[in-house]
Amino acid sequence: MDKAKIRLYVDQPLAQGQTVPLTKEQSHYLFGVMRQDNGAVVALFNGVDGEFLAEVTKANKKNGEMACRAKTRDLLMPPDVWLMFAPIKKARTDFIVEKAAEMGARRIVPVNTEFTNAERIRQDRLQAHALEAAEQCGGTYVPEVTDLQKLDRVLADWDETRHIMFCDEALVGAAQVLGDVAADKWAILIGPEGGFSEAERARLHELPFAHAVSLGPRILRADTAAVAALTIWQQHLGDWS
Amino acid sequence: MDKAKIRLYVDQPLAQGQTVPLTKEQSHYLFGVMRQDNGAVVALFNGVDGEFLAEVTKANKKNGEMACRAKTRDLLMPPDVWLMFAPIKKARTDFIVEKAAEMGARRIVPVNTEFTNAERIRQDRLQAHALEAAEQCGGTYVPEVTDLQKLDRVLADWDETRHIMFCDEALVGAAQVLGDVAADKWAILIGPEGGFSEAERARLHELPFAHAVSLGPRILRADTAAVAALTIWQQHLGDWS
Repeated sequence: MDKAKIRLYVDQPLAQGQTVPLTKEQSHYLFGVMRQDNGAVVALFNGVDGEFLAEVTKANKKNGEMACRAKTRDLLMPPDVWLMFAPIKKARTDFIVEKAAEMGARRIVPVNTEFTNAERIRQDRLQAHALEAAEQCGGTYVPEVTDLQKLDRVLADWDETRHIMFCDEALVGAAQVLGDVAADKWAILIGPEGGFSEAERARLHELPFAHAVSLGPRILRADTAAVAALTIWQQHLGDWS
Repeated sequence: MDKAKIRLYVDQPLAQGQTVPLTKEQSHYLFGVMRQDNGAVVALFNGVDGEFLAEVTKANKKNGEMACRAKTRDLLMPPDVWLMFAPIKKARTDFIVEKAAEMGARRIVPVNTEFTNAERIRQDRLQAHALEAAEQCGGTYVPEVTDLQKLDRVLADWDETRHIMFCDEALVGAAQVLGDVAADKWAILIGPEGGFSEAERARLHELPFAHAVSLGPRILRADTAAVAALTIWQQHLGDWS
């Protein structure tokens, strides 16, 4: 069987021999847009069972079907790290979600801070971005994108066994101080373009489970900071080492 | 004097008391678009002398002038690391250049590899992007963006005292192996979307000054890889530690 050029996320159980019905959208995409036909091979994943090569068994533009052949990849579950960020301009917010999915964040949590410019987000659109990033980068897991929440409420209800690594612009130029924190659950918090407010910063510094880190001597945009912070976390505490 | 909300790169010497003539474009931007007037305060940098607060002394939309007051920042020279990358789609190429400038690359070198999709680049547009990134992120240095060159020619003429950290997709999942290389000059090399060709990979692995690294167990897009690789380099060998 050829290697698949198309990867699709399906909300269906996957196992060898399993028949997989396609949605109307997927059928239209595969057989209308991509002009695939019976026998064509596509890689399927569902965020749970890993990746399978599947063969088109019904090339119908409205309700196609596939049959799962060989398993090609196990599920690569990301470490238990969330990315919390303050939404910024549309293109850069999309970018942060895409990058968090690529870099192996388990959950993506948009938060409203005092200096956040965005009043609302399109959660469904951001979720679709995370899914597309997984489809295009060979991912087998799709992080959940939550609805926009207020940072102070999120912190008020916080599970204190989940530690927070927050990127403090005021620490620009300071040494890395993540140290040896023994915690299994983490969240990375990136501030908005205008930085955290004084009250937010003071509160974060007081939380015993929150750890401020510096991202070097240059001021980074929020989207850059998200990738850099995930790199540091994955290297020190995640599955990059 | 107020803190400046506008930062401008000027191709002029800067020193306390220095008069700085503005170009037609800068004059149009400051006095036409941004409606600044005499006495307004702008931050100026030229990539050499650091950052100065300067005051508008001639608010003319065609040939304005400023006077340098206090020095507000020293030049933050990036470590001697280049970012070499294979240009991809326009938006992502722009993004790589912006991120390289933010993350403190000293030079940005687009290279054509066997699997590179781009035949040419607009060097002037990419240089403008690097400059804008510095203006917006409080940078005091602007990396030079070179013209597109062929990777094999670049490697044929290589200064062997400059070591290369290259991100090998075939190493996805392998351990980090940058180790303790004693070199002052570095270049990071990111491959194209399709990866390096077998011949390119073999050649890179043979070069005594080239070091393959892994960027974790997930396949990253080229733009993500650029930020992640710069983060790793800055942390281990650059000015983030």
